[in-house]
Amino acid sequence: MNRTNIDIIKFVAPEIIFGMNAISQIGESALRLGARKLFVVTDQGLMEHSWIKKVLFYLEQAGLEYQVWSEITSNPKDTEVAKGSEQYLASKCDAIMAVGGGSPIDAAKAVATVATNGGRIQDYEGINKITRPLPPMLMVPSTAGSGSEVSQFAIIVDKQRKKKMAIISRSLVPDIAIIDPQLLQTKGARLTAATGVDALSHAIESYVSLAANPLSDVRALEAIRLIAGNLRESVACRTNMQAKSAMSMASLQAGLAFSNAILGATHAMTHQVDGLLDLHHGETNAVLLPHVMEFNLISCADKYRQVAIAMGENVDGLSKQDAAHKAIDAVRRLVRDIGINYGLSNMGFREEYIPELSKNALHDACIITNPRDADAEDLARIFYKAM
Amino acid sequence: MNRTNIDIIKFVAPEIIFGMNAISQIGESALRLGARKLFVVTDQGLMEHSWIKKVLFYLEQAGLEYQVWSEITSNPKDTEVAKGSEQYLASKCDAIMAVGGGSPIDAAKAVATVATNGGRIQDYEGINKITRPLPPMLMVPSTAGSGSEVSQFAIIVDKQRKKKMAIISRSLVPDIAIIDPQLLQTKGARLTAATGVDALSHAIESYVSLAANPLSDVRALEAIRLIAGNLRESVACRTNMQAKSAMSMASLQAGLAFSNAILGATHAMTHQVDGLLDLHHGETNAVLLPHVMEFNLISCADKYRQVAIAMGENVDGLSKQDAAHKAIDAVRRLVRDIGINYGLSNMGFREEYIPELSKNALHDACIITNPRDADAEDLARIFYKAM
Repeated sequence: MNRTNIDIIKFVAPEIIFGMNAISQIGESALRLGARKLFVVTDQGLMEHSWIKKVLFYLEQAGLEYQVWSEITSNPKDTEVAKGSEQYLASKCDAIMAVGGGSPIDAAKAVATVATNGGRIQDYEGINKITRPLPPMLMVPSTAGSGSEVSQFAIIVDKQRKKKMAIISRSLVPDIAIIDPQLLQTKGARLTAATGVDALSHAIESYVSLAANPLSDVRALEAIRLIAGNLRESVACRTNMQAKSAMSMASLQAGLAFSNAILGATHAMTHQVDGLLDLHHGETNAVLLPHVMEFNLISCADKYRQVAIAMGENVDGLSKQDAAHKAIDAVRRLVRDIGINYGLSNMGFREEYIPELSKNALHDACIITNPRDADAEDLARIFYKAM
Repeated sequence: MNRTNIDIIKFVAPEIIFGMNAISQIGESALRLGARKLFVVTDQGLMEHSWIKKVLFYLEQAGLEYQVWSEITSNPKDTEVAKGSEQYLASKCDAIMAVGGGSPIDAAKAVATVATNGGRIQDYEGINKITRPLPPMLMVPSTAGSGSEVSQFAIIVDKQRKKKMAIISRSLVPDIAIIDPQLLQTKGARLTAATGVDALSHAIESYVSLAANPLSDVRALEAIRLIAGNLRESVACRTNMQAKSAMSMASLQAGLAFSNAILGATHAMTHQVDGLLDLHHGETNAVLLPHVMEFNLISCADKYRQVAIAMGENVDGLSKQDAAHKAIDAVRRLVRDIGINYGLSNMGFREEYIPELSKNALHDACIITNPRDADAEDLARIFYKAM
């Protein structure tokens, strides 16, 4: 049954509706959740797109009321969540729907939490701190990366502490995820690249996680295979629907994997960097992932070999160690091919940040399942290499 | 995105708790479902086992009331379901738990359906006929085969028509499945063999189904791999916990696959045979599966090649057709190795049944997703070959 540090495996997932024009099922899905008035979370940028109007039309067609709330930024902040919760309560809505990338989806989960459980979003940082039930949640991702539409994670920036908080709770798994690959056509190459590497980092980190298990492993490996075979093509062409569809599926499978097997040091570290510099999470992942993989290699070379195979590398006749290294080479090549060929220093990150961020990363929930023990010095060394 | 006849993929699964001593989480799980008094469905045979007392102890420990109902037979009957529904309503229970093999689990789902939706279980034969919500359902399988603890299927015998009805509905997906491989140690070799082949037939039929999709495919292939690698060992030794655990995981993964991708001609046919002769579903599957695979081969040789690889066959240098045939050889060898080396005629099945059963099989919901078009004559020919 593979290596695993846990005796009991738990696996939770929402109902999934996936495919071309899947958004046409939004009205029926909301009705099934018992919704009468939806609190629709999205961001300002998306409000300009015609498909958002289509989404709202499907709600109206089903006889549903709604109130749109879009006062959020990317890397959503604790202060925005507080305002959203007030608005949710004032709106008399009875269900929450997010439409957009990982930011609106995470924000919607956080709003649902504070509105029904009280307090501040900080109170729920860590694992399973949410005790009261959340309103029904319906999520419609417009990017292929965060996996938040199926996960028990929400990542919110603490503005004062300038760090991302990982809130992990079974209650955060949405009720229904509606995934329509057509929505990806509205995204440019840079966002496609960053979100795609985010999905890859979810797949790889969950596959080698200490909480990995046979239910998450098959999803993680399939995600890796799909990303290696389709991310370049998806970045290259906005209308390549075969690649977009495969990337949507990859992000979904990676989301199901990491939601249940958790992540590792890459995410524990990027949560600190993104929070400080307000960077795109996918790009910081892209920069840090190969370095974390090098650090972790001695703990799980067999699994790295499988990653190499899933990425299409030929490992015939190679030793276990050499085959494992092929996985890191393949990730490096993919990241470079899609245009992320820089280090942390090119992203506004300065060496002086390293000591504090390394210490903070040790308190992130994602470090617990990293396959190799790491202290602050280990993480600092990785930060330096990634400059 | 692979061959598929559907534009939109839907995937539903319960919350899963899997592992050694997972039954210790029964009380907490029932409480999370809001249960106060559980209607516990099991069969008489199981009532003698000490672990059932353990299950009931965990309920008591959590402060839960319960009422045990065990008046069911294997291949549960419509008449039993009617009585169970009356008892459920009289008991004032507010949740349903089944403990046992596929029979008590299917019976529990059917009782839940009739108790809350009214009428007879016949009213719900086919796809998505259940309209009103069911009570919370918690399932604890004691065999590794039916997959019913995670599926949207319930199979009930219509005593008058002497056939099995397939009831397929999203509402039949339980809320929580608690899978504890330790319970398998109470089962003998013959039941282990039959249930194991049932799981194999779920995996193979769902993998080649017209409704197969990337979400179900990875689960189906992993199930095939685990069964090919562990079923013999599980049949050979009652206390080989590594094999038992792998077979539990295989049955679970196969259940998730077929619940969402549906099945094919093997199940459409065995539903007729089991209903008529009250046979063990796994054994009729074992006899019919290789013959149906031969019939279906021309429709999906590529997928059969993948099945052969998952079963550990060496297909290097083989043509697609030859590689595909290896899958059928591997299934035949496995079935023979675990002692199912007979035909339908040795099971009380007579040639004169064939014309009517072949016609009836065309009305079973499982035939819709069989990858090769089949008429009554095609099915009759398969029945003859399997004599």
